[in-house]
Amino acid sequence: MPAPLAVTMGEPAGIGPDLLLALYAQRVERQLPPFVVFGHVDFLRARAQRLGLNIDVIPADPYEGMKAFARALPVFPISGPIEDTPGEPSSDTGEAVIDSIERAVTAVQDGTCRAVVTAPIHKGVLYQAGFSYPGHTEFLAALCAHDGTAPLPVMMLAHEDLRAVPLTIHVPIKDVPGLINRKLILDTLRVMAHDLRQRFHIAAPRIAVAGLNPHAGEGGTIGREDVEIIGPAIADAVAEGIDAVGPLPGDTLFYPPHWRQYDAVLAMYHDQALIPIKTVAFDSGVNVTLGLPIVRTSPDHGTAFDLAGTGKASPSSFAAAIAMADQMTAPKP
Amino acid sequence: MPAPLAVTMGEPAGIGPDLLLALYAQRVERQLPPFVVFGHVDFLRARAQRLGLNIDVIPADPYEGMKAFARALPVFPISGPIEDTPGEPSSDTGEAVIDSIERAVTAVQDGTCRAVVTAPIHKGVLYQAGFSYPGHTEFLAALCAHDGTAPLPVMMLAHEDLRAVPLTIHVPIKDVPGLINRKLILDTLRVMAHDLRQRFHIAAPRIAVAGLNPHAGEGGTIGREDVEIIGPAIADAVAEGIDAVGPLPGDTLFYPPHWRQYDAVLAMYHDQALIPIKTVAFDSGVNVTLGLPIVRTSPDHGTAFDLAGTGKASPSSFAAAIAMADQMTAPKP
Repeated sequence: MPAPLAVTMGEPAGIGPDLLLALYAQRVERQLPPFVVFGHVDFLRARAQRLGLNIDVIPADPYEGMKAFARALPVFPISGPIEDTPGEPSSDTGEAVIDSIERAVTAVQDGTCRAVVTAPIHKGVLYQAGFSYPGHTEFLAALCAHDGTAPLPVMMLAHEDLRAVPLTIHVPIKDVPGLINRKLILDTLRVMAHDLRQRFHIAAPRIAVAGLNPHAGEGGTIGREDVEIIGPAIADAVAEGIDAVGPLPGDTLFYPPHWRQYDAVLAMYHDQALIPIKTVAFDSGVNVTLGLPIVRTSPDHGTAFDLAGTGKASPSSFAAAIAMADQMTAPKP
Repeated sequence: MPAPLAVTMGEPAGIGPDLLLALYAQRVERQLPPFVVFGHVDFLRARAQRLGLNIDVIPADPYEGMKAFARALPVFPISGPIEDTPGEPSSDTGEAVIDSIERAVTAVQDGTCRAVVTAPIHKGVLYQAGFSYPGHTEFLAALCAHDGTAPLPVMMLAHEDLRAVPLTIHVPIKDVPGLINRKLILDTLRVMAHDLRQRFHIAAPRIAVAGLNPHAGEGGTIGREDVEIIGPAIADAVAEGIDAVGPLPGDTLFYPPHWRQYDAVLAMYHDQALIPIKTVAFDSGVNVTLGLPIVRTSPDHGTAFDLAGTGKASPSSFAAAIAMADQMTAPKP
C-alpha cells in the first residue's frame, strides 16, 4: 500500500480547511487517495461542525492515518490552540501554519508521505510570525536545501494538457525585461525537461517558449530581447538535448491546436502564463512546484476570506491538486 | 435593398484573394450578404483558376455588383496589372493594394457600400510604395480625417461574447508602462463605450479594465501604475457616465464566467488582449476598428504566404469578419 499524501492545513481563517474537509466528505465519489492533514484536531472539528459536515477527525501519524482514512479524517497534530474564526486571520496562528508546512515536508522527505499538497496561506500573517520568504514556493525550496543551497523552484500551472511556467512571477511588468536572462531561461528549461520526464512520465518532452514582445518581436523590430536573449537561451537548451522551440508569438502559441503540440510552455511573465490557463481551466487549474526533490502541488487560488466558513467555495482546484500529486507519485504498475 | 459590403483585395501574394474567392463560392451555405471586391479582375480570375474555383468574376460598380452577386463575383476595378504569384510579394503591387483600400473607404463614405472588410496586407511591400503608416488601422483613420484631424482608431478583437481592446499594440513590453497614461485610457474608454452602443447596439455597455501588473499590482505592492494611472483613469470615465470597472487582475478577469459579465475588456498590451481571444476563438476571431466614422472589420490573421494559392487556408475568420460587418450595419428592422 503506497504512503498517503500530506495535506497542509493552510491559513485557518481562509477556505483551505473548508475545502479539505469537503473533499474528505466527498472522498468516495471523487475517488481520492488517502491523505493525512497536517493540522489542528480541535480546530478542524469546529470548522467541520460549522460547515455541517459529519466527519470523524482523529489524531494519527501517516501510517495509522492511511489505514484509518476510509472511516476517519486523519490529522497529524501541529501546535495550537487555533480558534475557528473564518475570515478573520490572526498573527497568533502564523507559527502553526509554518509548523504544518515544515512537518508535511519532513514527512515526505522521510518517506512516510508521498507528496505535499498545500492549502493557501496568507503571507501577511506569516510575516508577523517571522516568515521571511517571498512565498510558499520559496519556503518549500529552502526546506529542501542541501548543503545550504536551495534548489531553483519552478512554478507550473497545469490543467489537463496545458502546462505553463511563468519565468518571472510577482514582479511589475516594467521590471520583467530586465529580469529575463539567458541563464535563468536555460536553468528553467532544464528543470522543466527533467521534471516532465521524472514527474509527469513524458519520455521525450517538447517545450514551447513564448516570446516577450508582441509577435515574439517580429525579428527584432518590436523589442530586442526575443532575438538577443530568448533565442540564444533556447539554442543553449537545444545544444544540451532539450527539445525546446521558440521564441513563439505569445498569442498564436496559445491557440489550442498549437499548444497541444507541446508538453509545456515557458512564458516570460505572470499574465502570459496565467491568462491562458484561467481561460481554459475554469476552476480546476493546479499549481505544481518543479525543481524540488519532493512533489508539491496546490490549488490555483488564494485564501478567499469572504467565502471561508460558508461552504460556498469550490473544491475543484484542490481536488485536482490532490489527484495530480497522486498521479505524479503513484507506484509504477 | 441595403448597399453591399466593400471587401479589399489585400496583398495579392497572400491568402486574402484565396479566402474571398473561397467565401464567394460558399456564399449560399454561409449565408453571406452581397459584397463587392475592390480588386483586379484578371488577377482574381487567374487566382480562382489556380484554386480550381469555377467563379464568374465581373467588373462592376457597387450598385450593379449587389444585383449581380447571386450569379457572379463583382469586382470594382483597381490599378494593375497584377501577376498571380502566390507567396512571392512584389513592390510593383503596393500601389494597387493602397488603391483598393482608398476606393473601398470612399465607397463607404459616399454611401454606395455599407462597411469595409479588409484582407491582410504586407507592410513591407507597401512601405516600398511610399506607405507611411504603422499599419492598416492608422491608414484607415487617416482616410477618415476631418479638417486635417484623424480620429483615434481603437483595435478590438472580437469573438462572440468576448471583445478585447489592447491599449498599446505593436510595441516592446519594456515600452508599455511608459505609454500607459490617463488620457489614453480615458479616450479609449470613450470610444469603446460609444461604439458598443452605436455599432454593437448594446444599450448600457459594461467595460472591464485589466491591470498592467500581476494581480493588478496588489494594491500598489507589485508596480504603481495600477493605482496611480489606471485606477484614476477609470474614475474619470465613471464620472462621465461610462460603466467601467477595474483595474482587475488580468488572469482571473479572463476566467470565462468573469469576462462574460462584461461587454468588452480593455487590456493594457498586445498579448494580454490577444492570448484570451486566441485561446477561446480558435480561427474565428475578428479585428474590428472602433472610433472611425465608418465600420471596418478584418480577419484576425496575416498574409500567410506559405498557404497562398494552395486552397488550404481557413476562411473562418474572414467569414466571421464579413458577418460582423453585416450585423454592425444591417438596417434596423
